[in-house]
Amino acid sequence: MKFICSQSDLNTNLSLVSRAVPSRPTHPILANVLFVADAEKQQVSLTGFDLSLGIRTSFPAQVISPGTSSLPAKLLNDIVSRLREGEITIVDEEETLGGGILATIISASGRFQVRGMDATEYPELPIVEDGEALTLPIEALSEGLKLTLFAASSDETKQILTGIHLTFDGDNFEFAATNGHRLAVVQTTNEPESEEENESSLSEIEDFEITIPARALRELERIFALQDKTDLIALNIDESQVVFELGDRRLTSRKLEGQYPNYQQLIPNQFSIQLTLDRRRLVSSLELVSVLADQKNNIVKFSLDSDKQQLALSVDAKDVGSAKEVMSVEMSGDNIEIGFNTKYLLDGLKSLPSNEITMQLNSPTTPVIFTPLGGLKMTYLVMPVQLRD
Amino acid sequence: MKFICSQSDLNTNLSLVSRAVPSRPTHPILANVLFVADAEKQQVSLTGFDLSLGIRTSFPAQVISPGTSSLPAKLLNDIVSRLREGEITIVDEEETLGGGILATIISASGRFQVRGMDATEYPELPIVEDGEALTLPIEALSEGLKLTLFAASSDETKQILTGIHLTFDGDNFEFAATNGHRLAVVQTTNEPESEEENESSLSEIEDFEITIPARALRELERIFALQDKTDLIALNIDESQVVFELGDRRLTSRKLEGQYPNYQQLIPNQFSIQLTLDRRRLVSSLELVSVLADQKNNIVKFSLDSDKQQLALSVDAKDVGSAKEVMSVEMSGDNIEIGFNTKYLLDGLKSLPSNEITMQLNSPTTPVIFTPLGGLKMTYLVMPVQLRD
Repeated sequence: MKFICSQSDLNTNLSLVSRAVPSRPTHPILANVLFVADAEKQQVSLTGFDLSLGIRTSFPAQVISPGTSSLPAKLLNDIVSRLREGEITIVDEEETLGGGILATIISASGRFQVRGMDATEYPELPIVEDGEALTLPIEALSEGLKLTLFAASSDETKQILTGIHLTFDGDNFEFAATNGHRLAVVQTTNEPESEEENESSLSEIEDFEITIPARALRELERIFALQDKTDLIALNIDESQVVFELGDRRLTSRKLEGQYPNYQQLIPNQFSIQLTLDRRRLVSSLELVSVLADQKNNIVKFSLDSDKQQLALSVDAKDVGSAKEVMSVEMSGDNIEIGFNTKYLLDGLKSLPSNEITMQLNSPTTPVIFTPLGGLKMTYLVMPVQLRD
Repeated sequence: MKFICSQSDLNTNLSLVSRAVPSRPTHPILANVLFVADAEKQQVSLTGFDLSLGIRTSFPAQVISPGTSSLPAKLLNDIVSRLREGEITIVDEEETLGGGILATIISASGRFQVRGMDATEYPELPIVEDGEALTLPIEALSEGLKLTLFAASSDETKQILTGIHLTFDGDNFEFAATNGHRLAVVQTTNEPESEEENESSLSEIEDFEITIPARALRELERIFALQDKTDLIALNIDESQVVFELGDRRLTSRKLEGQYPNYQQLIPNQFSIQLTLDRRRLVSSLELVSVLADQKNNIVKFSLDSDKQQLALSVDAKDVGSAKEVMSVEMSGDNIEIGFNTKYLLDGLKSLPSNEITMQLNSPTTPVIFTPLGGLKMTYLVMPVQLRD
């Protein structure tokens, strides 16, 4: 394998696929990036894969001799990211002793040699052959991901909750994420804006329901950031895998197995108390009283007063001190006191996509929901916590 | 104690003195900031002190009732930094039960209560009464500190090396810092620029030699950043303490005891090999080969070739790979190979205050010095390391 490419192309693509390279690989080959140099297409493709998440990308190069090689991801990334802009030549050779691979990276000012491994050992990236496909613009997915990814569980023992649950009914997407204490649900429409897009979003898929690891979707967000939001993405799903294709870039992930919680039944149908309030103001007040709540059990008390049209946030951290913040709201319903975990509240309130928001509730022991006023359809549900006196 | 002040004044000064509050105090009172509200001057002074480093500062306030109080630094800082801009009232009272102090912080939108401690327990900040004083503009100290602080040892078992050694001969300052492997020395002149400054820099001090903890001087740098560089600073020294005064701000530190190494004798008087080179280029090449050196023992080999007028940096990390970078230099003297610790080299090279620099050496086992061409008088000395084949 021998090719010449630009430092910036190699750097961008190498750092992208390296995100799928595990930091503690179960097998040494997985610490590598797979290089495939194609003389016909005059391009090089790179693959990173941790057996669950795989990322493949390709970029133009002057391929002098085609071939494949598997080179250490971290080391190569560290080198290439520090090289000055300009042409880089990469050439590999079999070592005379030991039979390993030795790759040489040549820049204008110097040369590096790194030891690689036999590329034939590198595992195949899963291919969805008989799966169903759906093509849609990036923006149909990106907003939904942005507003739910924060809410997924990071607790690896709660497997299914570490994913985003994605439902498609032919026209609309629903994204859901929960850690068992709070839930974010977002609905978006795959509305074709023009005839042409309509054509391209015609698909073999009528509906589906899958749970995809949040980790893979965070990487998908990174890829989105490198593209235009009107770029098309193709979604392929089979029994165990989901594959996203964006031009020369492809992300594959295993699906999470198991029954996702029936979250819709958690969301109350009607509410006896309703408030409209300023989201940024509520966030800054919560951050203030959190200083005290952090000292104790992270519990904040909301006192809702419909006569005064006022919300008071208070924390009493016995030995340390106390905090109280007051803000005006528009409220209907009975006065009530209710407790929340400050962290779960803040996570969601920081993410809601409008500044004017609605808070709806029934009692100190039933779910409370926050929704943006206008814009995207999003529901943020938080379970209250018991107040102790 | 009761006073009204602006959030921004309180926030700036509180975060400044909090830098001297220890994170793990040996006595509970030291986790506090001392508040003194002075009705006559209509100002509040704040003090943080860890028994070695002390910072005192004051700011204007509407003092309604004078008094002193000692309040928890971290908690208060966390609260005040999050409060919105505007007026803040702080009032304290003795608790009816327990005899502690309860301070109330009142803003436009809420109120906080924090538990304080009896201010009479707060230790006195050392005062230098019979010491010698020297008044000079900030810039006479700031440059010297900037170029040496990085080189002090962070190893607390090497007490004296954790400081900056400061020598004054009546006209000139010399700053020195070393960790035993590398040494930075900077000379600056306390040159009065005008008649007026000449007047003010007249001092009782003829000469001195002290070692001041780097930690205290880093905080002094932070204070400098809040001032104009032509502002005057007064330096007071007695047997055990050094005190810096800048207007309403004062920093006190104990001196480090013990004999500072006689570093001047380490600097060779003449050199058989001399190079002029581009500092930024050398730094970026060093950072490149460091990727490989980090895998091994951090050793880089410099191969100096006077025929080719060329410097080659190389690293051989046996099982991982190798790196070589080449750059042009202007060189006189014999060809030589010499080894360095990449980290010690980079620390100094990143700090040197000009891009064109000189490297001077004699042999692979004697000290090597780097100096800037033009600008400040600085010497950066590095001990070579032995190359193993």
